[in-house]
Amino acid sequence: MSYQAPYKDMQWLVEQAYQTQQLGNLESLQDFDLDLANAIMDEANKFASGVLAPLNMVGDVEGCTFSDGQVTTPTGWKDAYAQFRDSGWIGLALPEEYGGQGLPKYIAQPVNEMWLSSNLAFVMFAALAQGGSEILLKFGSDELKARYLTQIVTGEWTVAMALTEPNAGSDLGALTTKAIPQTDGTYQIKGQKIYITYGEHDMAENIVHLVLARTPDAPAGSRGLSLFAVPKYRVNEDGSCGEFNDIRCTGIEHKTGLHGSPTCSISYGDNDACVGELIGNLNQGLMAMFVLMNEARLSCGMQGVGLSELAFQKAQQYSKERVQGAGADGQRVAIIEHPDVKRMLLNLRSESFALRSLGYQIAALIDVAEQSKDAETAQAAEKRIALLTPIFKGFATEQANELVGDAIQVYGGMGFVEETGIAQVMRDVRITTIYEGTTGIQAKDLLHRKIRMDQGRCISELMADIRDVVEKSPDSVVNQRLGQVLNQLAHVLDSTILNPSAELAQLDAVAVPFLNALGGICCAWQLAELAQQAQVSKAQDEVFFGNVVALAEFYSAYKLPQAQAALTTVIEEQNGVGNYEF
Amino acid sequence: MSYQAPYKDMQWLVEQAYQTQQLGNLESLQDFDLDLANAIMDEANKFASGVLAPLNMVGDVEGCTFSDGQVTTPTGWKDAYAQFRDSGWIGLALPEEYGGQGLPKYIAQPVNEMWLSSNLAFVMFAALAQGGSEILLKFGSDELKARYLTQIVTGEWTVAMALTEPNAGSDLGALTTKAIPQTDGTYQIKGQKIYITYGEHDMAENIVHLVLARTPDAPAGSRGLSLFAVPKYRVNEDGSCGEFNDIRCTGIEHKTGLHGSPTCSISYGDNDACVGELIGNLNQGLMAMFVLMNEARLSCGMQGVGLSELAFQKAQQYSKERVQGAGADGQRVAIIEHPDVKRMLLNLRSESFALRSLGYQIAALIDVAEQSKDAETAQAAEKRIALLTPIFKGFATEQANELVGDAIQVYGGMGFVEETGIAQVMRDVRITTIYEGTTGIQAKDLLHRKIRMDQGRCISELMADIRDVVEKSPDSVVNQRLGQVLNQLAHVLDSTILNPSAELAQLDAVAVPFLNALGGICCAWQLAELAQQAQVSKAQDEVFFGNVVALAEFYSAYKLPQAQAALTTVIEEQNGVGNYEF
Repeated sequence: MSYQAPYKDMQWLVEQAYQTQQLGNLESLQDFDLDLANAIMDEANKFASGVLAPLNMVGDVEGCTFSDGQVTTPTGWKDAYAQFRDSGWIGLALPEEYGGQGLPKYIAQPVNEMWLSSNLAFVMFAALAQGGSEILLKFGSDELKARYLTQIVTGEWTVAMALTEPNAGSDLGALTTKAIPQTDGTYQIKGQKIYITYGEHDMAENIVHLVLARTPDAPAGSRGLSLFAVPKYRVNEDGSCGEFNDIRCTGIEHKTGLHGSPTCSISYGDNDACVGELIGNLNQGLMAMFVLMNEARLSCGMQGVGLSELAFQKAQQYSKERVQGAGADGQRVAIIEHPDVKRMLLNLRSESFALRSLGYQIAALIDVAEQSKDAETAQAAEKRIALLTPIFKGFATEQANELVGDAIQVYGGMGFVEETGIAQVMRDVRITTIYEGTTGIQAKDLLHRKIRMDQGRCISELMADIRDVVEKSPDSVVNQRLGQVLNQLAHVLDSTILNPSAELAQLDAVAVPFLNALGGICCAWQLAELAQQAQVSKAQDEVFFGNVVALAEFYSAYKLPQAQAALTTVIEEQNGVGNYEF
Repeated sequence: MSYQAPYKDMQWLVEQAYQTQQLGNLESLQDFDLDLANAIMDEANKFASGVLAPLNMVGDVEGCTFSDGQVTTPTGWKDAYAQFRDSGWIGLALPEEYGGQGLPKYIAQPVNEMWLSSNLAFVMFAALAQGGSEILLKFGSDELKARYLTQIVTGEWTVAMALTEPNAGSDLGALTTKAIPQTDGTYQIKGQKIYITYGEHDMAENIVHLVLARTPDAPAGSRGLSLFAVPKYRVNEDGSCGEFNDIRCTGIEHKTGLHGSPTCSISYGDNDACVGELIGNLNQGLMAMFVLMNEARLSCGMQGVGLSELAFQKAQQYSKERVQGAGADGQRVAIIEHPDVKRMLLNLRSESFALRSLGYQIAALIDVAEQSKDAETAQAAEKRIALLTPIFKGFATEQANELVGDAIQVYGGMGFVEETGIAQVMRDVRITTIYEGTTGIQAKDLLHRKIRMDQGRCISELMADIRDVVEKSPDSVVNQRLGQVLNQLAHVLDSTILNPSAELAQLDAVAVPFLNALGGICCAWQLAELAQQAQVSKAQDEVFFGNVVALAEFYSAYKLPQAQAALTTVIEEQNGVGNYEF
């Protein structure tokens, strides 16, 4: 089967996000209404299902090949890139001034989801172009912007993000790549980096590496990191590609998934001829990188949504075709008739629906943060985004791994066979809980930076918003259960998470269960609110809106108890991690 | 790193199982005491870590190759098989009369675990030999036994189990392979089978296929299936291999894991020259197959244990070597110092320890069932095994998939790279929740056949045994929590599972959550009992026994709440699966 965008869901959820975040009130968005959103989604679906999806398995089977410093992408990749670029998809939500289309994030989000579902390995360059552009827009000098932005936004050149080194992964403070100042104001870059997505490839003329490095006098640790623009080919005065910039790909990883996306090891300045230009201020590289990283984390959460959707579509189709076992009347039935198969499909369906809603709400919040003329509104949106980012990234990707497992289970033995394509989804999705910050790192960010340092203000506001939804339909079983879990959460915050005398080691041990609890609560919140809206709209489409209510009910019975269990763990942790001697 | 058997754990848990099931009282086991068990485990560890483990990645990377009906196993496989065979490991727990060593199951179980950890793809033939022998012992005529048993027990020939057809997987009643009676009492076999593990290979001289097929006048459905012994080469009067028996391998699956184990499609009787002999009675093939299937299910549960142990060892070692991030004093530390990494390692450690204990207890119960001279004792053991089999198979394999995910997470980005070997474990373990009956099928077996049809007697006895453990140390936090969950389980049984008016569709929807709840409860039971024993023995080895107590505490805080959540789902399911229209 080929992926098809879940158009109806997307359309309705985009509309809900638009309403909830009152995007109609934003002056700068007057030209970008829901009709436009729908027209663009329609075009994007054609590209995703028609061009990208058919290449997904090709990429997996062929993988990239590395030879003598060169990386060759799979058959069809180069052509697809040219089409993608020429259709203007890369600059969809980037400024018109640099060749983009300047669309709001709330429209770009469902489009991104389609790319991620249809061919994640392929489109990873798109998120890099988006993030790289935002860094240059925020921190780059006019000269840097002029040199790089149009080329990146139009897709002539691609972006690579060079952070990790063999001894510095999650711990960026340990980076050792050097940047030595030259008399002309540029820097000589020297060092080895690994895990660079699309660090080398054959699809574009030039690759702009954003490299974290350390100048000779820089302080130790992460406060001594600066960010540099380091192109594969130096850029001539007229903007054309010039001399080779001494950047060598030394190999690509042999990964269990995402075979079509080259993960490169790169050696910078082997011959002392690798020139970089500083982006922003010295020693503030991490700050700039965080812009890209927050983007990347949200995009990573959407990867969880996109791959769960893909897995759902595949499993649902298979379950309708595969006849096995008998129904209540003794006749053989398609396996979708078996309650246990329904349970697994609804696990996939309810979770990806809820997470999609959350992802679209976050995108709409970004529009508010970026476009609102009311400073308080914009700031509130920013704080909410900051709180939701680790929850969304961590929970969506953890869930996606579980959900794809359920999809394989629906396939039975066929799920273990590569030809069906579902095993590829399992292999591809595995990295999403790791890159752009592991779930453990998201959980620490959430617990310490987003909740404890904020003294619980932002989480209290979120809980108040959820409470509002609960109280709108106090008779609903779903809402009652969600209300109970909110009470439990309040207790956990008081007694443990915000308790000033809580032991740090103990908090860190339960950080991931705590993140998972919040993820489940946020998803239940989305479904509770959507179910309320569905009740209102029910007459328009009995099946669709009836199903939205059923999803909320399913979530409440099957998933919300898991959030409660995770909160119980937070409370019951009695140094259970510390008492064991490894 | 190379696998090493967790010898100390194994030794202690074997001892506990021996004591709990009072194997010392069994007359026929007088020669097979714990000293012998330890000596054999020692030998097995040498073979597992020295011969099998180094071939595990070879098998994954090379896989089997298929050409013109022939299957070639990976480099080294054939030699390792010869060594395995010549060392007598295949017949370890099979009768001496046929060349086996006649050891009790309680000794064979830890040995099996070592094989499964060190190289699952390789040793799959061993479980087939074991199961195939038991079928022939129970149902085969003297002639069949004489023809096949010694050859199988000594490993001269291997066994293949031919059940599945393209349209009949879980639903064996739909099988269509034919068995046409011949005048000489044999049958002509004709049909296509798939998913036959080691159905064709180059390691042994002959392969005895056990084929489920249907005679012309057989009733429809699963009551019309008979089981046949169908050798690849017909057997001459003198026991040597004769004429080719018209069995053709038509291909092997391209699987996501277990590459070293050939999964064959086989065509029987293309030229009407495939001769089979009936095993047992006509139309009772399924009954015979169930003998093998129960064996296979228990072995499959042990695969969950074995792969979780392997994943734990790899993750633990990596976490001790990998330096990343800072400890409380700001110095860089190995990641095992981070509480979140400890949490993941303890998830692996506590669950695999508990499941290992359960698996060893089941093996000891099999010895009781087979060897006890007291009919009542033997029958009670049989019933307990029947109850625990689906719980152990389903829960151990579901957990193993989650646990291996945690192990990958400990590796971070390196976990996604094939060279570390942990991604292979993820790919290999994926099938364990599917073959030998999916988790959904285990859950239905548990709920209907083992609990409802039994009117809850057997589960009540199990709960009484757990209650005894709880009440032995009423002050223990672990026991108190386990006691609470037992109360909740009692309520779930009364109100839902054993409720005669419960809706079947609703029960089937929650069957897997119910199985998972019972799995968690059984593991907590094991750990609670082991912790009690550890308190008694503590002075002998403070670290080891202190750790056992810590594992029970960890499980109680981090895992038992999940069992509660699953029970909550069973109660709260309000047709949540039925209300959604697909």
